[in-house]
Amino acid sequence: MRIGIVGGTGKEGLGLGLRWAQAGHDVIIGSRDAERARAKATELAAAAPGRRIEGMSNHDAAVAAEVVVLTVPATGLGATLPELREPCRGKIVVSSVVPLTFGGPRLFTPPPPGSAAEEAQEILGPEARVVAAFHHIAAHELAAGDHPIECDLLLCGADADGKKLVADLGKSMGLRPVDVGPLSNAGPVEGITALLATINRRYKLKNSGIQITGLP
Amino acid sequence: MRIGIVGGTGKEGLGLGLRWAQAGHDVIIGSRDAERARAKATELAAAAPGRRIEGMSNHDAAVAAEVVVLTVPATGLGATLPELREPCRGKIVVSSVVPLTFGGPRLFTPPPPGSAAEEAQEILGPEARVVAAFHHIAAHELAAGDHPIECDLLLCGADADGKKLVADLGKSMGLRPVDVGPLSNAGPVEGITALLATINRRYKLKNSGIQITGLP
Repeated sequence: MRIGIVGGTGKEGLGLGLRWAQAGHDVIIGSRDAERARAKATELAAAAPGRRIEGMSNHDAAVAAEVVVLTVPATGLGATLPELREPCRGKIVVSSVVPLTFGGPRLFTPPPPGSAAEEAQEILGPEARVVAAFHHIAAHELAAGDHPIECDLLLCGADADGKKLVADLGKSMGLRPVDVGPLSNAGPVEGITALLATINRRYKLKNSGIQITGLP
Repeated sequence: MRIGIVGGTGKEGLGLGLRWAQAGHDVIIGSRDAERARAKATELAAAAPGRRIEGMSNHDAAVAAEVVVLTVPATGLGATLPELREPCRGKIVVSSVVPLTFGGPRLFTPPPPGSAAEEAQEILGPEARVVAAFHHIAAHELAAGDHPIECDLLLCGADADGKKLVADLGKSMGLRPVDVGPLSNAGPVEGITALLATINRRYKLKNSGIQITGLP
């Protein structure tokens, strides 16, 4: 699978890229700054020798990718996504965007559509097959590519085939996928990241996560 | 501890009451209908012999209780809570209210303040010491009082002493408490219940829950 990570030069994007490269996927790091994307791709390639890892502009990454992953800040969706509407048409678009605002009256600040994923769907249009996933896997854990990640992969969206593919992308890095329904559940999924960020600060951790209990 | 459960004749309230009675607390079942509360209290007493379990109106339950627990439907807060403002003054008030709307365009429908717990705080006034907790413990699990519950107790609120007491109420029924910060995190906490309800339906379960990973 050829995976393009929009806003992929941040910790979360690079961590996902590392894990997917290790799992044998082709990874494209996207950035507003193609030069920066290439530099980060070179760094990543050193950590995953023998894998195909490239860097390019966000737009070119979306064009080249089979699956597009959004790891931009929530406040950047309005600026970043309009030019991706065409290249994302018909593609599975994974939103791992979390609308958190640090230092304000509340940490979880979803946009008016209810979640960052639904905002992405609005901007990209109905032909983008948006699946919300990978919000809870700590960047710190992703970067430490040497041990299993103790966190479930919660995912939601309208597209059953898209969810199956995203579930497989999670399994390829050792995660257990849990289907939590339609994209209208993306707000609660994204909100969990606010709780994990609070737990990390309060309990002085870097890698809290969640698991669903009671599943067969 | 003398615990008054407002709207306690529902499954969740009765389940919490059972577990707390088994743990040795006095339990007061509150209802709009005092007669119905007394009938349910009698049923509950049969399941927890030797414990002090009473039924009364929501108002009288709040007056008599040391700790007030809200298990009313989210849409009932505006009707139920104004008369509880006086009796809740200075008391710890546990909100386990979950703003879910079944059959609509989205399952998680928090009120304008951001969460049911924050709405309760607004109605009860600043002297009620609101702690949000016990949203995720399946009524089915609470009722099956014969085995440990595999679910963490997430709790949040402004009052540190209140959170400690609620944590102890959780421990008394075998739950691990996890402090997830201020009451402004109650929305994400309540939202998890939407995900668990979706998981239960999708995976044909009655008792999905969550656990935080990475804690010491």
